[in-house]
Amino acid sequence: MKQRTRYFMLCLIFSVILCGCNTAPEEVNQTAAAEDTLYQVSTLDGLMQGVYDGEITLDDLLQHGNFGIGTFDALDGEMVVLDGTVYQVLATGEVATPDETTVTTPFAMITSFTADTEEEGTGIENFDDLKATLDALLPSQNDFYAIEIHGTFSYVETRSVPAQEEPYPLLADVTSAQAVFQFENVSGTLVGYWCPAYIDGVNLPGYHLHFISDDRTMGGHLLDCTIDDASIAIDTLYEFQMLLPQNDHFAQTDLSGTSNEEKQAVEQ
Amino acid sequence: MKQRTRYFMLCLIFSVILCGCNTAPEEVNQTAAAEDTLYQVSTLDGLMQGVYDGEITLDDLLQHGNFGIGTFDALDGEMVVLDGTVYQVLATGEVATPDETTVTTPFAMITSFTADTEEEGTGIENFDDLKATLDALLPSQNDFYAIEIHGTFSYVETRSVPAQEEPYPLLADVTSAQAVFQFENVSGTLVGYWCPAYIDGVNLPGYHLHFISDDRTMGGHLLDCTIDDASIAIDTLYEFQMLLPQNDHFAQTDLSGTSNEEKQAVEQ
Repeated sequence: MKQRTRYFMLCLIFSVILCGCNTAPEEVNQTAAAEDTLYQVSTLDGLMQGVYDGEITLDDLLQHGNFGIGTFDALDGEMVVLDGTVYQVLATGEVATPDETTVTTPFAMITSFTADTEEEGTGIENFDDLKATLDALLPSQNDFYAIEIHGTFSYVETRSVPAQEEPYPLLADVTSAQAVFQFENVSGTLVGYWCPAYIDGVNLPGYHLHFISDDRTMGGHLLDCTIDDASIAIDTLYEFQMLLPQNDHFAQTDLSGTSNEEKQAVEQ
Repeated sequence: MKQRTRYFMLCLIFSVILCGCNTAPEEVNQTAAAEDTLYQVSTLDGLMQGVYDGEITLDDLLQHGNFGIGTFDALDGEMVVLDGTVYQVLATGEVATPDETTVTTPFAMITSFTADTEEEGTGIENFDDLKATLDALLPSQNDFYAIEIHGTFSYVETRSVPAQEEPYPLLADVTSAQAVFQFENVSGTLVGYWCPAYIDGVNLPGYHLHFISDDRTMGGHLLDCTIDDASIAIDTLYEFQMLLPQNDHFAQTDLSGTSNEEKQAVEQ
């Protein structure tokens, strides 16, 4: 009887370990980082109105993808997520890798990136030329697209913004005093999205790209670029998920005050 | 040794059953029908432009909640989802319970309903009065709300629409010839949503309610009502998920042609 009990207990412990290891983590991954999905924290219109308090941790954000852009609690720099690592381009120009368990984001877009379209591009003279190149690769005006462009850049111009203090100013007032960086002859990656016109109320229609250099020392929100050779990868996204901030600032803000023209001016 | 083996096998079988039963179904449910989430199939602006081909089955829709509204493949009637059952209010006025495995929807909104606010309402004279009553119960203009109103109605006016044939006409042209129903002294439930102004490009800002009678024989898209006594339940939704149709019609449609005024006219 003693032996039976010992075997029963051993098997029970074995079962519990087996159940625990096998199911929980796999299910969570399968769920969270869904294919062809853009997961967005808050609305860009909320950010425009100064809703800068972080809503979820970077760890929670990474449950929804490995590729994306955004900003940090209090608007502390530009975010680039590439291959599952979060980079923080500070207003000083330095690139940090923030603590993913404690640092939070008030606005971000993230995707589990899988290329549907891959093309080469050469001699792209400026941002408008890049947009025209990409426009020709987007099959519909009604879907979302994640865009990854790795290449050699003869010129890149980016910006970043410093952490703000409460009461938070409007984003337009912050970016009017933004730090601008110019890089020459650098290899790196543009990470970002094209969004359809109908998303105007909650995000930016058109292109929104951030840059990170191969050596991870330079980056920021893209303002302009000249690209010698580019590998362009595009992932069509058919699902849009948006998590709204559960704080009083967002709940009580008048979000009708932001026009598309103002967003375009601030972002590009 | 034989006895040991027998106990080991018994325990192993027990473990496998335990693992199987305990984890898979729970995880799927937890995932799909997330709390405080509005799951939307397609955009209302797409439906306005005649994108009526069903995108997912009712079974797939029900993975995302037990409470909602919408329509059916080819615009065949008004959908009410209540307590996990899908009702189809046909243009004849009949209420059917369609086959959930084969029937599809081109536009729907669904939620796993849990009341955050519960209030009683009496002497609600018309739809405008109902809106004013509800307005006072919504804590923010920036979140989504699922709304369930069970009550005794001295008057209800609803509409439904018949199945369309390709090439599909615009929704405004269909609703100009809609069937209108008037019911008196009926107990039933209003099922629907309030959406924020910023969602204009993809849904209807404000209220969108469908009706179903307690005996499940009368219903439709709400046009007007007089409510004697109402139990109002409201669920604040902080996450918005939108599944875009993966068909050529949606991909190639000009979605910029729909104004908020046109949607308000068609829906209310």
